Amino acid sequence: MGLKARVHVYPKPGVLDPQGRAIGQALGHLGFTGVAEVRQGKLIELSLSETDPAKARAQADEMCRRLLANTVIENYAIEIVPQGGR
Amino acid sequence: MGLKARVHVYPKPGVLDPQGRAIGQALGHLGFTGVAEVRQGKLIELSLSETDPAKARAQADEMCRRLLANTVIENYAIEIVPQGGR
Repeated sequence: MGLKARVHVYPKPGVLDPQGRAIGQALGHLGFTGVAEVRQGKLIELSLSETDPAKARAQADEMCRRLLANTVIENYAIEIVPQGGR
Repeated sequence: MGLKARVHVYPKPGVLDPQGRAIGQALGHLGFTGVAEVRQGKLIELSLSETDPAKARAQADEMCRRLLANTVIENYAIEIVPQGGR
């Protein structure tokens, strides 16, 4: 049974995040107070056939650099979990 | 110092995920093999002034139900972390 790579992609601190700002404003209109900042990112879950966690991480890292994240404006983090895990 | 709510929003299992499928195809074109399935979701990070983790979670849960997630087709999960935490 393979592994699952969970990739979090975020706008870098200081990079304008219009989606996050729109969510923050909408929350304000709905009456939610006490929300200082909102950032929106992407979450990508990959089901891999690779069973070695170190190799799965290296594979996911290459995918991030080549496709999933724009490293000029985005940071990413990779989490390797068992298939079927949360 | 307040708390940070990290909200993960995913398409429910069985719901068509065209973004995830497009990523899967693009990875194939780049030569990555062994990727069985790709699902793309959203990641929303909220900086809250609330300092009680239970109240922060309840607040984030209400935000999800009212704005952040479409519970007909999406599932969500909330993680409460200290401000500045990863």
